[in-house]
Amino acid sequence: MNTSYMVTVEEAQKFVLEQIRSINAEEISLPECLGRTIARDYYSQDNIPPFDNSAMDGYAVSSPDVARASRESPVVLKVVEDLPAGSVAQREIRKGETARIMTGAAIPDGADTVIRVEKTRSEGRTVTIFGSIEAGKNIRLCGEDIRNGQLVLKKGTVVGPAEMGILASLGVDPVAAARPPTVGILATGDELVEIKEELTPSKIRNSNTYSLIGQVKESGGIPRNLGIAGDSKNEIRRKIEEGLKNDILIVSGGVSVGDYDYVKEVMTDLKGRIVFWKAAIKPGRPMVFAIINGRPVFGLPGNPAASMVSFEVFVRPAILKTLGRQNDNRREVSAVVEEEIKKKKGLRYFLRAHTRWEGGVYFTRKTGLQGSGILKSMVLANSLIVLPEEEEIIDKGRRVTVRFLN
Amino acid sequence: MNTSYMVTVEEAQKFVLEQIRSINAEEISLPECLGRTIARDYYSQDNIPPFDNSAMDGYAVSSPDVARASRESPVVLKVVEDLPAGSVAQREIRKGETARIMTGAAIPDGADTVIRVEKTRSEGRTVTIFGSIEAGKNIRLCGEDIRNGQLVLKKGTVVGPAEMGILASLGVDPVAAARPPTVGILATGDELVEIKEELTPSKIRNSNTYSLIGQVKESGGIPRNLGIAGDSKNEIRRKIEEGLKNDILIVSGGVSVGDYDYVKEVMTDLKGRIVFWKAAIKPGRPMVFAIINGRPVFGLPGNPAASMVSFEVFVRPAILKTLGRQNDNRREVSAVVEEEIKKKKGLRYFLRAHTRWEGGVYFTRKTGLQGSGILKSMVLANSLIVLPEEEEIIDKGRRVTVRFLN
Repeated sequence: MNTSYMVTVEEAQKFVLEQIRSINAEEISLPECLGRTIARDYYSQDNIPPFDNSAMDGYAVSSPDVARASRESPVVLKVVEDLPAGSVAQREIRKGETARIMTGAAIPDGADTVIRVEKTRSEGRTVTIFGSIEAGKNIRLCGEDIRNGQLVLKKGTVVGPAEMGILASLGVDPVAAARPPTVGILATGDELVEIKEELTPSKIRNSNTYSLIGQVKESGGIPRNLGIAGDSKNEIRRKIEEGLKNDILIVSGGVSVGDYDYVKEVMTDLKGRIVFWKAAIKPGRPMVFAIINGRPVFGLPGNPAASMVSFEVFVRPAILKTLGRQNDNRREVSAVVEEEIKKKKGLRYFLRAHTRWEGGVYFTRKTGLQGSGILKSMVLANSLIVLPEEEEIIDKGRRVTVRFLN
Repeated sequence: MNTSYMVTVEEAQKFVLEQIRSINAEEISLPECLGRTIARDYYSQDNIPPFDNSAMDGYAVSSPDVARASRESPVVLKVVEDLPAGSVAQREIRKGETARIMTGAAIPDGADTVIRVEKTRSEGRTVTIFGSIEAGKNIRLCGEDIRNGQLVLKKGTVVGPAEMGILASLGVDPVAAARPPTVGILATGDELVEIKEELTPSKIRNSNTYSLIGQVKESGGIPRNLGIAGDSKNEIRRKIEEGLKNDILIVSGGVSVGDYDYVKEVMTDLKGRIVFWKAAIKPGRPMVFAIINGRPVFGLPGNPAASMVSFEVFVRPAILKTLGRQNDNRREVSAVVEEEIKKKKGLRYFLRAHTRWEGGVYFTRKTGLQGSGILKSMVLANSLIVLPEEEEIIDKGRRVTVRFLN
């Protein structure tokens, strides 16, 4: 098999990323920023918590005052104040004194610890303490969570629930987030009909547009459905020109060697620079990556599963780079393969697989037929088995690299 | 330590789920259904692909016609038709004949295989074939991906990109999806100020509302921010009554034993049935779960990390159940713990941890301070170490259960 004109997966990924610039930021209201990528470093401008405060409901005391307290020989203190959360103490605690304090309330001056309410008995303006306690105990210290001036969230971080909590603590709203790239999706082929149209003989429904819409969203982009272009140069050209208004354009189908595969021709007509054509990958070999008018354009194979795999391997990293995301959150592990796998040398394989954790080890097996048109295997898969170019036979029981898809 | 009045985590989870009913479905347009839960079983009403079709560009032939073809002794066939994708053959292939066929085009009658264009040479209305090929090769068979009548997507499935592709192939649009529950989020406490307000002494910014908004969205619910109620019974009561318009209500803070913790009192005043109060969990012990007016109401601890953990352990499963999701997609694995951990017997611990894959094994370690107010450790964590009730000392190097958070 002649693979000399193909680029390797690694080269292709590098060629793609070289062409991708990260795009500008926009301001997003805090409640809306889940899943978004932070576009600047955030430093704290406060200590969090901003003051020493009680970790429980009880009595703020000076530890020497209760050093000898026990159940047999309790100590009685005078309650000089009541400190609910959010209150400010009016005076300091002196010898023999205490203040009732609630969780979250600021520790008054003169106190160095909080004794839990369950270890006390209150009587009018006094309280009986039945145990000793170390200084510093039951206190959440000022700046314990985050110190003033500390780098808290790095540019390129994806916002999850904990990041939303931290941003709120810092008083950050709106949040500077990477603007999601718009990604035009154009399906090509005379055989395609829209999902609501009637399915006449020799036609199939356009499914790639919809799996690509899902993949674009999952990667943090905004999909723009450009519909279907029939196998006509003019139609494809018009739609591609329209699609170039987006940050990235995906053209599905029309990239193999057939006479009706006009996509590459149109790219050249539009003065596009073809960066590579065909990558040494299975599924997904017939693909093209071009720069037209400064826009990255991916021509992906029309077969449904090949389309999804090519997206995962080439387009997803490009979208993450436009967002400035530092690394992907796809988890890669090694797993014991439960069947022998044969492959062609020279191609990197991405086989749809189901991987499970059992007895401290991952096991993986292919999800049925791997023909590149088989979408069902993609639904059953939670992962891809990644097999390197040089391999030919992978014995049952060997460890292989697995990339989780969710 | 007296734990007799606390329910175990397992009991508490069971008590919660017993009270949760799945809610009704709604119709969602296919491009919008990523991440949604499918509300009915979907069966295919077609074969996919709907007809035998070519897996490549080439010539549709009858395999006996080319059985003896080789580079040295090629076979010449008459090209009777041109079959682009989407076309319908006008006639069958007879002995000595072939049709040019493009990827995806229906296989014409009389042909049983497709020979790749690279193994042929075309001359006018004939083509020279330089090799033999087996019957059935390079053909994607009718129903190979999905058979007519087959159950394709089960009720309770979460829609990912592959599911979107399959739904499109089946012509399903709109999609019957579970209606996401609305989840009211009420923060309580006199110490809280809204994130845009000035931070005066002894006040802290309300962060729980925002981490909870993130967690509710991540779990598939629709958050409704009810703002902050001060520590006043009337204010809490009014806000809780407002919050009961939602499918689920979360009240953050106000559930420990302090005098200003009115949430439980208000729940009783509103004729709520308190299902349990305090669970044997760390962090997150002071919590309450009640049914008021038929609505599930969670009183979660006010400490930021305790709030997040309690949500993960108790509220997330409830939201998933309202959606009819069959199982969570949180991955649980075992990992080697890189430090000794001490814990109190009788409580189940959920420690914020960073877990990494190295040399075929997961290693895990705590992300710094575990005080329940420490939000930073939650940002650094990608997982929770789950330690069972009966344990007290977990030696360094032992295997522990780890639950990934993403």
